[in-house]
Amino acid sequence: MLDKKRLAHIVFESNDRVSRLFDIVLLILIFGSVTVAILDSVQSLKDEYGQTFYYLELGFTFLFTIEYILRIWLTTKPYKYISSFFGIVDLLAILPVYLSFFVANTQLLSVIRALRLLRIVRILKLGRYLAEADFIGDSLKASAAKIQLFLFSVLTIVLIMGTVMFVIEGPEHGFTSIPVSMYWAIVTLTTVGFGDITPSTPLGQFMASVIMLLGYAIIAVPTGIVTAEMAKRKTPRHYEFLKSCTHCSFEGIELGDSYCRKCGTKVD
Amino acid sequence: MLDKKRLAHIVFESNDRVSRLFDIVLLILIFGSVTVAILDSVQSLKDEYGQTFYYLELGFTFLFTIEYILRIWLTTKPYKYISSFFGIVDLLAILPVYLSFFVANTQLLSVIRALRLLRIVRILKLGRYLAEADFIGDSLKASAAKIQLFLFSVLTIVLIMGTVMFVIEGPEHGFTSIPVSMYWAIVTLTTVGFGDITPSTPLGQFMASVIMLLGYAIIAVPTGIVTAEMAKRKTPRHYEFLKSCTHCSFEGIELGDSYCRKCGTKVD
Amino acid sequence: MLDKKRLAHIVFESNDRVSRLFDIVLLILIFGSVTVAILDSVQSLKDEYGQTFYYLELGFTFLFTIEYILRIWLTTKPYKYISSFFGIVDLLAILPVYLSFFVANTQLLSVIRALRLLRIVRILKLGRYLAEADFIGDSLKASAAKIQLFLFSVLTIVLIMGTVMFVIEGPEHGFTSIPVSMYWAIVTLTTVGFGDITPSTPLGQFMASVIMLLGYAIIAVPTGIVTAEMAKRKTPRHYEFLKSCTHCSFEGIELGDSYCRKCGTKVD
Amino acid sequence: MLDKKRLAHIVFESNDRVSRLFDIVLLILIFGSVTVAILDSVQSLKDEYGQTFYYLELGFTFLFTIEYILRIWLTTKPYKYISSFFGIVDLLAILPVYLSFFVANTQLLSVIRALRLLRIVRILKLGRYLAEADFIGDSLKASAAKIQLFLFSVLTIVLIMGTVMFVIEGPEHGFTSIPVSMYWAIVTLTTVGFGDITPSTPLGQFMASVIMLLGYAIIAVPTGIVTAEMAKRKTPRHYEFLKSCTHCSFEGIELGDSYCRKCGTKVD
Repeated sequence: MLDKKRLAHIVFESNDRVSRLFDIVLLILIFGSVTVAILDSVQSLKDEYGQTFYYLELGFTFLFTIEYILRIWLTTKPYKYISSFFGIVDLLAILPVYLSFFVANTQLLSVIRALRLLRIVRILKLGRYLAEADFIGDSLKASAAKIQLFLFSVLTIVLIMGTVMFVIEGPEHGFTSIPVSMYWAIVTLTTVGFGDITPSTPLGQFMASVIMLLGYAIIAVPTGIVTAEMAKRKTPRHYEFLKSCTHCSFEGIELGDSYCRKCGTKVD
Repeated sequence: MLDKKRLAHIVFESNDRVSRLFDIVLLILIFGSVTVAILDSVQSLKDEYGQTFYYLELGFTFLFTIEYILRIWLTTKPYKYISSFFGIVDLLAILPVYLSFFVANTQLLSVIRALRLLRIVRILKLGRYLAEADFIGDSLKASAAKIQLFLFSVLTIVLIMGTVMFVIEGPEHGFTSIPVSMYWAIVTLTTVGFGDITPSTPLGQFMASVIMLLGYAIIAVPTGIVTAEMAKRKTPRHYEFLKSCTHCSFEGIELGDSYCRKCGTKVD
Repeated sequence: MLDKKRLAHIVFESNDRVSRLFDIVLLILIFGSVTVAILDSVQSLKDEYGQTFYYLELGFTFLFTIEYILRIWLTTKPYKYISSFFGIVDLLAILPVYLSFFVANTQLLSVIRALRLLRIVRILKLGRYLAEADFIGDSLKASAAKIQLFLFSVLTIVLIMGTVMFVIEGPEHGFTSIPVSMYWAIVTLTTVGFGDITPSTPLGQFMASVIMLLGYAIIAVPTGIVTAEMAKRKTPRHYEFLKSCTHCSFEGIELGDSYCRKCGTKVD
Repeated sequence: MLDKKRLAHIVFESNDRVSRLFDIVLLILIFGSVTVAILDSVQSLKDEYGQTFYYLELGFTFLFTIEYILRIWLTTKPYKYISSFFGIVDLLAILPVYLSFFVANTQLLSVIRALRLLRIVRILKLGRYLAEADFIGDSLKASAAKIQLFLFSVLTIVLIMGTVMFVIEGPEHGFTSIPVSMYWAIVTLTTVGFGDITPSTPLGQFMASVIMLLGYAIIAVPTGIVTAEMAKRKTPRHYEFLKSCTHCSFEGIELGDSYCRKCGTKVD
């Protein structure tokens, strides 16, 4: 019986076969629409299959519109959904195509559909990834203040080094302004090193060497912060198989122990 | 007495002198054939020694063919070997040369022999590297779910950032399509930074800076995951003060234990 | 009543609302002056708003001069302030503008104001970042000797590899001198890889590969040093299973304790 | 009394003022000679000061020759010194200059003097760096087998990926041979990314993305190995202030405990 309540369950939950199937079909559709948008950006493919891509996009948009209306109709709190992150993303995912009937060049915005892929998180959360995602998330949350401090320090170094390099190298060697020099300093400090701008003067190369060694060494700081946080959170190995002693209630009996190491009672 | 059983032992095991010698000779042959394939790809060397390389390759292929037939004949389960990973690799390692008698341009495939080098793992496993390889392998296996989540997040960032950069910079600055922009985003996020495509607009350079700082910071996540896993697996500190049991010689009595957990004898 | 003592409190402390407001206004002014200096370095913006930027800079300098005089007047130890790090930075932040009335091309020095942004540390220190900053600072201080040793080793590798590459590749392939080769070695070892200078000979490419693998592997050393230091400083694991004492409410009773270590009461 | 024994002490030891002074003067001379060699490689400086550099080099060589003869004369085991690492380095440091009187273009070899800088290790070892150097050295030694396994895996990936890219991109896109492709694979996997060779085909860019993500992720492995090793070696924080209980001899009384947590006895 597909009454409204059952339908709402299918759309909003994913804890039985049908609702799970709905989520997976939806994910495939989103993935398909994103793929079409990506392929459509390749000129040679657009020239050949542009028409097909256009109709596919219309099809996806039609299905997503039905889904959007369904969600508003089924939810008990429509305004809360509409103003939520996923509500806005869902609207933005269909709007550009409708706008493109009246205004040119809005279709590019349909790539915003990529954000809908984040719905995958909901399904993943129900599987074995839940604990792992929580582990990573908690570790990063606990490290947040330290990471902010680190980023603030990095940006200060970038500001000072960018300015210094602008003074040393100057516009004639590609360091056309302080913002560009700061961009170069980030490229260098993060060890990306595009090479679109490079120091040419001996002093500039010396300063660049200092920035590079700095960037090479301070990568240790965020790594250390997150690792220490994760190591702290780990389940200690030997606690994983613990049993209590039936005689003295000592709680540290490990897998493989034959006798309690506190009172000497035999373990079954 | 080189009967079939002894021969099978030599070919498939590597726990005595002769079988070990067989493995080492085989490895030298594989290494030699790979080296010839590599050198053969250098045009100047091919011009001069092309003929020699060709005969060497025929020689190696002949020996590897004998080895392949030997393995099928000696094993008690020939079909299992033929359909196994190494069985397929062994076949692919000799097939291209035979094909090249009839079809042109197949010799390149002989580089697949490089995969045969993985046989080295079998020999390494028997030495002191066994425990170490297990340690690294177990740590990575235990981190697999977390690493998958991390890669999924990275690919989402790459998809969104690639699209954003395609919109900002556009084909006129080298970001010719979303796939190319995504390639650039990976180049930037992983701090590789080839510099074949670089942002030219101020907004593009700003977004690139964000991606670079992101890539610089989130390297901490996989590092943290693997390190925490490895630190967890390390010999726990309290094993360092171990004593042996005077009764059963069990060597795992820890600081603070009152009874041997293997035989129940009181510890002094 | 804004007497001298109260004013000194406002300027030098930041533990009540008014003194905090003073610090925040000061930070906004510093941030504004730095932004103007940055924007002024962009030729197109300078052409259009150069005059505005000039008057803004005069205004900022005027306010900073008042602040500088105020600080000297209010402090009980004026010479100590003048010769302190922030005293010198404060002076250097206003001097260039006054000098520019007499000498040309000194305004660039006003970017030294960026250093004044470090005052933000004082305000941050009072908030939740204090403990975190101490944590990072202490970890780095404790790692200092090890990091120095690491940098010394890196510089030795750079010196030797730079020389070797100069001999192998030579001036005709861009390695014009040993200092330039050492710059290239740093670019390569730190995995920055600008690509402004690249090896062209097979031997040079082989040596470059060695340097790259070395740089890729030894990044583990500073990371390991800092991480081990940070992990050591983390709240020890056994505090996680704490119970409170029923008698004295001491909250640090660990798993396995039989008596409260503060009041000696037996733990159940 | 500068007898032979005292002189030998000054030259070979560095545990009193005079012998320490000798070592420091020697280090300054080595550093000076290396600096001259470096500056001499810069064409513009050589043009101007070439003559001065030449005489300085002669002077340094003269002093190093005296030192070399002194070391042979003073040591009780001259052959052992001559055939030792530093003995060979000391000889190679002076030989090129003498050879240059007869043969041209040998002076470049004088950069081998850089290796003499390693003598600094001897002096450092006596100071506060001894324990730190041992800590890093021991951690790396304990990780050696794991790091070797890691490097072997990396080289296998490089071999396979280099070959695959050579097949995909081919000589027309800069991947002129398998060795060159392997060089490119190392440049990419280690996230150096010179950009001298870059993939142009979509398939090549896809494979490059895979290599980059691989290189970005597996950096976690050596880092994890070394960090876990270093964390294992750390002095645990709470063991630093431990006392034993006077009554029950429990060895875990921490700073700040008032009562033994095992037997409840008051701690003084």
